Amino acid sequence: MNTEKLFRDLTEIRTKNPLVHNITNHVVMNTTANMLLALGASPVMAHAKEEAAEMTRLAGALVLNIGTLSPQWVESMELSLKTARDFGIPVVLDPVGAGATSYRTKTVHELLMAGGVSVLRGNASEILALTPAGGQTKGVDSTDDAGRATDAIRELAVQHNIVVSVSGKTDHIISSGHHIRVHNGTAMMARITGMGCTASAFTGAFCAVNKDPLLAAAHAMILFGIAGEMAEAKSKGPGSLQVALLDNLPSLEHESITKMVKVDGL
Amino acid sequence: MNTEKLFRDLTEIRTKNPLVHNITNHVVMNTTANMLLALGASPVMAHAKEEAAEMTRLAGALVLNIGTLSPQWVESMELSLKTARDFGIPVVLDPVGAGATSYRTKTVHELLMAGGVSVLRGNASEILALTPAGGQTKGVDSTDDAGRATDAIRELAVQHNIVVSVSGKTDHIISSGHHIRVHNGTAMMARITGMGCTASAFTGAFCAVNKDPLLAAAHAMILFGIAGEMAEAKSKGPGSLQVALLDNLPSLEHESITKMVKVDGL
Amino acid sequence: MNTEKLFRDLTEIRTKNPLVHNITNHVVMNTTANMLLALGASPVMAHAKEEAAEMTRLAGALVLNIGTLSPQWVESMELSLKTARDFGIPVVLDPVGAGATSYRTKTVHELLMAGGVSVLRGNASEILALTPAGGQTKGVDSTDDAGRATDAIRELAVQHNIVVSVSGKTDHIISSGHHIRVHNGTAMMARITGMGCTASAFTGAFCAVNKDPLLAAAHAMILFGIAGEMAEAKSKGPGSLQVALLDNLPSLEHESITKMVKVDGL
Repeated sequence: MNTEKLFRDLTEIRTKNPLVHNITNHVVMNTTANMLLALGASPVMAHAKEEAAEMTRLAGALVLNIGTLSPQWVESMELSLKTARDFGIPVVLDPVGAGATSYRTKTVHELLMAGGVSVLRGNASEILALTPAGGQTKGVDSTDDAGRATDAIRELAVQHNIVVSVSGKTDHIISSGHHIRVHNGTAMMARITGMGCTASAFTGAFCAVNKDPLLAAAHAMILFGIAGEMAEAKSKGPGSLQVALLDNLPSLEHESITKMVKVDGL
Repeated sequence: MNTEKLFRDLTEIRTKNPLVHNITNHVVMNTTANMLLALGASPVMAHAKEEAAEMTRLAGALVLNIGTLSPQWVESMELSLKTARDFGIPVVLDPVGAGATSYRTKTVHELLMAGGVSVLRGNASEILALTPAGGQTKGVDSTDDAGRATDAIRELAVQHNIVVSVSGKTDHIISSGHHIRVHNGTAMMARITGMGCTASAFTGAFCAVNKDPLLAAAHAMILFGIAGEMAEAKSKGPGSLQVALLDNLPSLEHESITKMVKVDGL
Repeated sequence: MNTEKLFRDLTEIRTKNPLVHNITNHVVMNTTANMLLALGASPVMAHAKEEAAEMTRLAGALVLNIGTLSPQWVESMELSLKTARDFGIPVVLDPVGAGATSYRTKTVHELLMAGGVSVLRGNASEILALTPAGGQTKGVDSTDDAGRATDAIRELAVQHNIVVSVSGKTDHIISSGHHIRVHNGTAMMARITGMGCTASAFTGAFCAVNKDPLLAAAHAMILFGIAGEMAEAKSKGPGSLQVALLDNLPSLEHESITKMVKVDGL
């Protein structure tokens, strides 16, 4: 893979600091904001229906995450999604816990059917729960392997005209005509809450600077995976891994990315 | 104390990753999730009445924490509590700030009266505010010593058929017929927000693998206290203490626990 | 500057642990609580209208922060503000994102018009958006320099009989008759979410022990800036900076403060 385009995106995030509007869950808001800042983006969280759409209008990307959803928050997600659609602002949807409760699965289907989502990014359990084949989700942790369900995922991508980005040991970024496999990342990242949500937020930041959602989604997963590997090398466990991630992100160099990238299909 | 049973519980948490459903406060959600992951459990947070009970049904334990309560969240706590009661899922209740406002005290009484709580876990001020004798709570910080109020606490345990776990310099785990004293832990842990809430979440995780709530509550306080002492030895203050706690928890060994345990009555 | 008064305030916070009631945003609650604990204050968060005013009554200061506002939370802010006014409890208002949406700007104006605010603390973009001259806010990040708008800010201070504390490369603390410039702090602090919110919370803690809101606001900004500089010297990036801040705050000495203070007009 030629990493020029990835590094160009990263440089644009660092220099233009695109505003990323997150309507996300209570558990990860602080982590998401700090990770986006360390990446170079400008995070904002606004969930009241009185202002959500107006805030979206100012943003380079909108990230919707249903991790601790409630009807009021979903209403604001719908208003923001409509504004994003009307103004051509890219939208990333993270279906946290889809399949675990019927309310989550139903809400994701409704947001997808409304139109305007660019990238659906979740773990294999969540994504498979959204395919006609269905699946089982235990909490928000992935238990399935996306590889064996590629066809169902591609069908989902075609149905909604979206890119589907499935994280796991290997990340799968799938559109109607493409399948990119990213082998970067580390197992210990799954021991920190909100790392999936951070991947979604980073996908939003890359969408804000790259009009091709397939490339944006792949670049985000590669960059985040490499940053995690570099951080883990300096860490003693999930606590110091999170600190090292925040420390390293602002200075991650093109050379390191080129050396460490492990990707197929790009 | 023979630490075989404690380590058996810990090993079961690490291998089975029980789902712990938390309806908890906004301040500590991220910390609670990360600490549960470092312990080996699988945390989930879901507070909407549209799904709270359904999520509880999937869980090995339910943890209710009123730190930033509001009527909508309390309604979901009640729905989840009912489901837990119906299906025999253990419930831990953390009465954060009970005694500070009448709304908090009243809410805790109502949740206790509903039935289904296994363990009530708070600091001395909070617990004493719930006894007929009453007490004074200043914010969420403990100012009283549970030792001098043992009788009142035992009465509370008998009244609701629960275990009461009171944290402080010495932790007191009290049921109708038992009184366990845990001397592990460090003063600096009180300088990090959410350490009491983490103790409650850990109590939930141990309840998910040990059907005896007295043992589960004691094991949680011992394990957390020892983890805190080991982390403090590597720390320069409350910031690095929290990082070290997360780093050490996944690898805490039986040998260290046996060496460090300081407990009476077990 | 003679730092005796600042250190006397800090010592009083450390020994009396004043309760600081925060109705603040979802993103920073954990950080705010940990920073207040590290400073020596006793944080509490309570946002339900059923208890907000009752909690305020127990507090040494009230901090209102609109970072993730919604009508229910604003209603509780109003109730708490009224109680604070009735009982002479100092109030700090942080107008996060004022100017970004009309809902934010309107809410801040209404809270200011209600009366009872002691200190308005925000970044230059937010503060300028509240002056008759207006301004532009991009998310919650400052893009303007307060220096060039001193007259408009003083007008705002006079109009509401408040102290206005504007953070940036230089912090400006402005009242009808005074203008204090604080040159402490570091650029990297802006790469951590919630550092402005922490400055507001610290201003609340100092207001709880010092009846002069001008001095309290200045002391808070000086202390926080110096703590940030000391932490940055031990840091490798925004992750370890936050850890070092929490580690250093409890032991920050008078001597270090005296050596490092950089202030004009005090």
